[in-house]
Amino acid sequence: MCAATIPPPPRKPGVAGTDAASEDQKGIGALAPAVILVEPQLGENIGMVARAMLNCGLTRLRLVNPREAWPNDKAVAAAAGADRVLDEAALFPTVGAAIADLHLVLATTARSRTMSKPVIDPRAAAARMHDAVGAGRRVGLLFGKESKGLDNDAVALADAIVMAPLNPAFSSLNLAMAVLLVGYEWRLAVLDAGAAAPPPPPDDDPPATKAEMQGLFEHLEGELDRTGFLRVAEKRPIMVRNLRTLLTRAQPSGPEVRTLRGVIKYLAAGRRAGDREAP
Amino acid sequence: MCAATIPPPPRKPGVAGTDAASEDQKGIGALAPAVILVEPQLGENIGMVARAMLNCGLTRLRLVNPREAWPNDKAVAAAAGADRVLDEAALFPTVGAAIADLHLVLATTARSRTMSKPVIDPRAAAARMHDAVGAGRRVGLLFGKESKGLDNDAVALADAIVMAPLNPAFSSLNLAMAVLLVGYEWRLAVLDAGAAAPPPPPDDDPPATKAEMQGLFEHLEGELDRTGFLRVAEKRPIMVRNLRTLLTRAQPSGPEVRTLRGVIKYLAAGRRAGDREAP
Repeated sequence: MCAATIPPPPRKPGVAGTDAASEDQKGIGALAPAVILVEPQLGENIGMVARAMLNCGLTRLRLVNPREAWPNDKAVAAAAGADRVLDEAALFPTVGAAIADLHLVLATTARSRTMSKPVIDPRAAAARMHDAVGAGRRVGLLFGKESKGLDNDAVALADAIVMAPLNPAFSSLNLAMAVLLVGYEWRLAVLDAGAAAPPPPPDDDPPATKAEMQGLFEHLEGELDRTGFLRVAEKRPIMVRNLRTLLTRAQPSGPEVRTLRGVIKYLAAGRRAGDREAP
Repeated sequence: MCAATIPPPPRKPGVAGTDAASEDQKGIGALAPAVILVEPQLGENIGMVARAMLNCGLTRLRLVNPREAWPNDKAVAAAAGADRVLDEAALFPTVGAAIADLHLVLATTARSRTMSKPVIDPRAAAARMHDAVGAGRRVGLLFGKESKGLDNDAVALADAIVMAPLNPAFSSLNLAMAVLLVGYEWRLAVLDAGAAAPPPPPDDDPPATKAEMQGLFEHLEGELDRTGFLRVAEKRPIMVRNLRTLLTRAQPSGPEVRTLRGVIKYLAAGRRAGDREAP
């Protein structure tokens, strides 16, 4: 099946346009995974999920039978500006209805299940979702309720289980944290795919030229000769080398070299009573 | 200097043992990065940070000047069982004090800064921290307050800036989410390394501690104040920040810091006629 034959899921046209323009140069934004919260208990957590989603460039939120009334003021407060994700959230009565239009569904769990289903980590999940989306498929991620996660019936509907390799003695993530981890890996997968990319722009602040560095070295060493710091002849070469190594490692820019020379000048001149000039 | 000469940071002995046994087979648990929250505003967020840390196997929490009283009941409630992290949290009056014993400090920010400091993503940060810990160095991650992140003076003290490649139009993470992302990459780095090779041998010449760096900064700035280099009050903060950034970027070792202080001392004293001593 080719991508063009699959209609994108319904979106408000203006918002979808914004998404494509600001967030996704490769046009797969409209097919980014849907985040499906199954029986979320607290509006505040739904809001935090919306924020984490938008952090990762995800905008399609689906809610299966949330416990609190929807729309929800506490969700809006916790979303910290990700209102758009909440405004477009779609409500479904069952998991089955929420995933009906999807081609690939991954179920997130904190503990292993006795189910013969592939278990993958968030990075592998992101790669698999990215491949699917690239092939024009619609993808969704299931997250269970805060208190006990997904029930086995919901997990059974998924193509694979996603489990983050966290501390086995303390692996239960806050709901929005779980969304963030998978969303973050999704975003990296999108960026990596786009990164067969043009070279980075020229540095605004390139390192000093070697001539500038040489001028700095000679200025410093001249002053140190005068003050006696380098007066032990047999130690002088190694001390000079060490100072040059250190200054080179800092990779100062041209303006930074000039600052350092100002520092040397002021330090060296500062002790001459009443002989201070403006820098 | 070999790693064995560096005393580990103070830990409750039983807890360190627990850490090593339950969470880290390779014995680097005791040197896992410290999470340093600078002026956190809400106890609840500190609790959520503790939970996210323990999810990722991190246990060393440091608090710089939290706004609410400490210990804090809302933190305990939000930690959802990660009480141990809260119980062991250490309080510090300043960022400088909180990083004094560390060799590598990374500052997390949501927006780019006009500071010439390397900017790396969480994955690169985890790799760098893991290498440093493997070489016997002590590492910390700075996180700013919820409302506006780290100020530039704190960022200037760090060796690099960590920025997650999130949606540029909506990149501000909840505090605990930011901790989770870096902690998650740390955990993956630990697990990946466990699947591969032993850690590199300890570095012969580890970077100076932040306390040594602080001593260097204060010595230099004191002399520059005396000589008038920093006398324009409105320019002083930015000049100090630029010098600190430059010196931090050089990653001087402890002996190199002592050399630089000798340089400053000799430059500053050198103009006093007939008053020269041996270094």
